[in-house]
Amino acid sequence: MMQDTIAAIATPSGEGGIAVIRVSGDEAVAVSDRLFSGKAKLADVPTHTVNYGFIRTPHTGERVEEVLVTVMRGPRSFTKEDVVEISCHGGFVSVRKVLDLVLESGARLAEPGEFTKRAFLNGRIDLSQAEAVIDLIRAKSDRAFRIAMKQSEGSLSKRIGELRHRLVELMAHIEVNIDYPEHDVEELTNAFIKEKCSLALEDIERLLVTAEQGKILREGLVTAIIGRPNVGKSSLLNTLAQEDRAIVTDIAGTTRDVVEEYVHVNGIPLKLLDTAGIRETSDVVERIGVEKSRQALSDADLILLVFNGAEQLLPEEREMIAELAGRQVIAIVNKVDLPQQLEEADLSEAFGSDRVVRMSLLEQQGIVDLEKAIARIFFSGQVESSDLTYVSNARHIHLLKSARSALQEAFDAAESYVPIDMIQIDIRTGWEHLGEIIGDSVSESLIDQIFSQFCLGK
Amino acid sequence: MMQDTIAAIATPSGEGGIAVIRVSGDEAVAVSDRLFSGKAKLADVPTHTVNYGFIRTPHTGERVEEVLVTVMRGPRSFTKEDVVEISCHGGFVSVRKVLDLVLESGARLAEPGEFTKRAFLNGRIDLSQAEAVIDLIRAKSDRAFRIAMKQSEGSLSKRIGELRHRLVELMAHIEVNIDYPEHDVEELTNAFIKEKCSLALEDIERLLVTAEQGKILREGLVTAIIGRPNVGKSSLLNTLAQEDRAIVTDIAGTTRDVVEEYVHVNGIPLKLLDTAGIRETSDVVERIGVEKSRQALSDADLILLVFNGAEQLLPEEREMIAELAGRQVIAIVNKVDLPQQLEEADLSEAFGSDRVVRMSLLEQQGIVDLEKAIARIFFSGQVESSDLTYVSNARHIHLLKSARSALQEAFDAAESYVPIDMIQIDIRTGWEHLGEIIGDSVSESLIDQIFSQFCLGK
Repeated sequence: MMQDTIAAIATPSGEGGIAVIRVSGDEAVAVSDRLFSGKAKLADVPTHTVNYGFIRTPHTGERVEEVLVTVMRGPRSFTKEDVVEISCHGGFVSVRKVLDLVLESGARLAEPGEFTKRAFLNGRIDLSQAEAVIDLIRAKSDRAFRIAMKQSEGSLSKRIGELRHRLVELMAHIEVNIDYPEHDVEELTNAFIKEKCSLALEDIERLLVTAEQGKILREGLVTAIIGRPNVGKSSLLNTLAQEDRAIVTDIAGTTRDVVEEYVHVNGIPLKLLDTAGIRETSDVVERIGVEKSRQALSDADLILLVFNGAEQLLPEEREMIAELAGRQVIAIVNKVDLPQQLEEADLSEAFGSDRVVRMSLLEQQGIVDLEKAIARIFFSGQVESSDLTYVSNARHIHLLKSARSALQEAFDAAESYVPIDMIQIDIRTGWEHLGEIIGDSVSESLIDQIFSQFCLGK
Repeated sequence: MMQDTIAAIATPSGEGGIAVIRVSGDEAVAVSDRLFSGKAKLADVPTHTVNYGFIRTPHTGERVEEVLVTVMRGPRSFTKEDVVEISCHGGFVSVRKVLDLVLESGARLAEPGEFTKRAFLNGRIDLSQAEAVIDLIRAKSDRAFRIAMKQSEGSLSKRIGELRHRLVELMAHIEVNIDYPEHDVEELTNAFIKEKCSLALEDIERLLVTAEQGKILREGLVTAIIGRPNVGKSSLLNTLAQEDRAIVTDIAGTTRDVVEEYVHVNGIPLKLLDTAGIRETSDVVERIGVEKSRQALSDADLILLVFNGAEQLLPEEREMIAELAGRQVIAIVNKVDLPQQLEEADLSEAFGSDRVVRMSLLEQQGIVDLEKAIARIFFSGQVESSDLTYVSNARHIHLLKSARSALQEAFDAAESYVPIDMIQIDIRTGWEHLGEIIGDSVSESLIDQIFSQFCLGK
C-alpha cells in the first residue's frame, strides 16, 4: 500500500484560476515525466523548483494543458516522499483530464486524507498534528483556525508528551519496587503514587476544561432561531449575517438541500439551523411543520427565541417557554421601538434576566447586547486558554476522560492499599490512552477511520 | 494602475487540501518577504523555486500559516511581472487570513481577470488568447476544453493574422496605385480587388461556419425538459445525469437558488434548465407556475418534451405541441413497455419522425436513440472542424460578421467601379475589425469589459 504512488486533486472543486494535482510516492517524478514536456526532464531538475511546460497525451503527443510542475523530493516534502504538484487551469475539465492522465501513467487515486496519513506513517507528524490538518481546513472562525494551527505545530502533543513522560517515570519507580522490593530506591509509598496521580489528574483536568469551548470553536455553536410568524426571525438572521460577513458553505458531498450557514459573533461561530427555511418563508414552523422544528430545537446548543414586544404573549408562546426551561435560551424581545405590550417579567423568570435582550431589528438596536449575551453563555464562567491549547476533537476528549478514569482508579486503589502491581496496571492503562491521542499504539482500523474523514487531495 | 502590485486567491473557494494566493507586480517579492519567514529571504532565493516556511503577523510575529512560497521572477511568469504564489491550507479562514496580510503589506486586491489582463497588456498573449483562458476554466466538456486550449495556443490568432496579412498586402497594392497611378506595378484592376476580397470572405465564412457549434460547445445547449406530471421527466433527468456523470456546478456569486446543471450527450454539453425543480417535485409546471415554465421554454435551444405513451394525448398536451411548432423539439414517448395509447403520428407530424424517440426509462430503453437524435440536431448538416479552430466567442463572431460586411461592400464597390480610394476604406474597416479580435486597436473600456467577466485570481 505504502509503496504505491498516489495522486489526487488538491484544490477545492469549482471554477478558479488555478487547480493543483498532487502526486506522492517513489514513482511521482517518473509518472509525471511520462506526461510532461518542458525544457528539461523532471528527473533532472533540482528539487523544489517550478517548471513550465505542457502535459501531453503520451500516445498522440497532443497538448492537453499548459502547466507549472513543482518537484519536491523526499524527505523534504509534505509526505516525506517524492511529491510532484501539477498546477493547471482551474475548472472542471482541465483538472480531471490531467488527473486521468496521471492515473493512466501509473499513479493510483489517493484515498481521502492519504497524503496526511503518509506524513503521519512516515513520522513527519504525530496523529494529533495530522488531525489538526483537517481542523485547519474546516475552521469556521479565526479563533478555531489559530487553535488548529497551534495543534498542528504540536502544542497538544507536547502537553501529552510531558504527561506521559511523568507517568513513565512513575511506572519505572513502581517497577523497581516490584522487582526489587529491598532495593535502595526511594520507597514507593501509596502516598507517593497518590501524589503523582493527582498531579497527572490535574493536568488532564486542565486540558478537559478547554474541551467544551474547543468543541464549539471547532464545530460551531448549533443555534436555532425560533418564534411565531412575523416576530422578526428573518430580520435577525439577516442582521447577524450582515454584521459579520457570514461564511456560507455548501458542505461538499451532501445534497444541495442541506446548507450549513455560519455567522460569527465576537469570534464565536454560530452554526445556524434551517436558515434556508427562515429566509424563504420567514416562518419555519409553518413551513416545515412542528415535527421538523422540534428536531431542530433538540439539536440546538443555543436557542434564540424571538418575540414581538408590541404584543402580549400568546398561549402557544407560553407553552414554548415552559417547554424550553432548562435549555440555553436567549429571549429576544423585538420591536421595542413600538409601544410595548409584552410581559417581560415572565421571560426573565423563565430564563433569567441576563438572558432577555431587548432589540429593534428595524432600527438595528440591541445587537451589541445580543452579542454580549451570547458571549456570556459561551464563556460561561470559563477563561480563555492562554496558550491556545484547546482540546477540541471528540476522540481526544474521550481518550482524556478514559485516562482520567484509569488514573482516578489508581489513586483510589492506592488509597485502599491495593497491591502496587495492580495499581501499576491502571497507570499503564492511563498512559496508553494518552498515547492514542498522539498515535502511539493505535490500531490500523482507527487510523483508517480518522483519515477517511479528510477531504480528497489532503 | 499597472504599477500596482496585485493579489488574489487563485484557487476555487471551498474546502480542499491546498489554496493558492497569487501576487504579481514589482513589489510582489518585497510584499511577501514582509510576512514570510523561512530559511532565506525570498529576495535572495533563485527564481522558480519553492520555499517552505511560515506566514507571520508582522507586528506580533505570530505564526499564522505554514506555507510553500513559489517565486517566479518576470518576464518568465504568467504576467511577465514578478509573481509570488503562496500555497497554504485550503478552507475559508486560512486563505482569507493570508490574503488579508498580503493586502496589509502593500498589495492591492486584484480585479477579476487582472492577472490575465496584465499578461495581455505586457504582450505575453494576444486578446483572443486571453479570452481563451476563461474558456479553459469554464469549459463544460472535453471538446470545449480542447477548442479553448487550441485558441489559447494561438490557433485563432494565427488564422486571423494570415487573413490580415493578405489584406495589408492588398491595401499596399491599392496605396501604390493611388499614390503613383503611373507606377510600373501590376495594374490594380477591380477584378484583382474582387478576387482578393472573395478569398478573404471565404476564409471568414470558413471560420463563421464553426460559430454555432463553437458557441454551443462553449456554453452548452440550453435544454428544457417539459411535460405534464408523472410522465417521467425526473427519471429522464436522472438517466441523463447518471449516464454521463453530470458535472453539477453551483455558479459562484449567484444565489443558492440558481443552479446550473450540465450533462454530456456524446460530448455535447446540455445545460439543463430548472433541474432542481424537476428533482424536487417531479412537476415543474405545477410548482413554479405557468409563467416561469414559459420563460424556461423561451430560453431553450432544445426542448425535450416528454409524454406518457400509455395514455392518450390530453388537450393541454395538444396545445403545447401546437405552441412549440418551429422550435427544436425532441418528443419523447416514455413508458413504451406498457400497452400504448398515444397517437404517435400526431407527434411525427408536428416535429418530424426523426424527432420522436420511443423510450422506457423504467427499463432504460431508448437512451441511445435519444442521444442520436440530440447529436443530429446539434451537428445539423455540419462537419466538425478538423483543426479544432472554432469561433465560439460572441465578440469574435460579431467582429467576423462586421469584417465580412465591410469586405462584401468592398467587393460590391469594386463591381460597381467605385473609385479605389473609396474601396480602400472598406478594406481597412474589415482589417480593423479582424484586428480587434486579437486585441489590436481595442479601446480600454472594451478591455476592461472583457476581463471583468473573468473570475477573481486569474
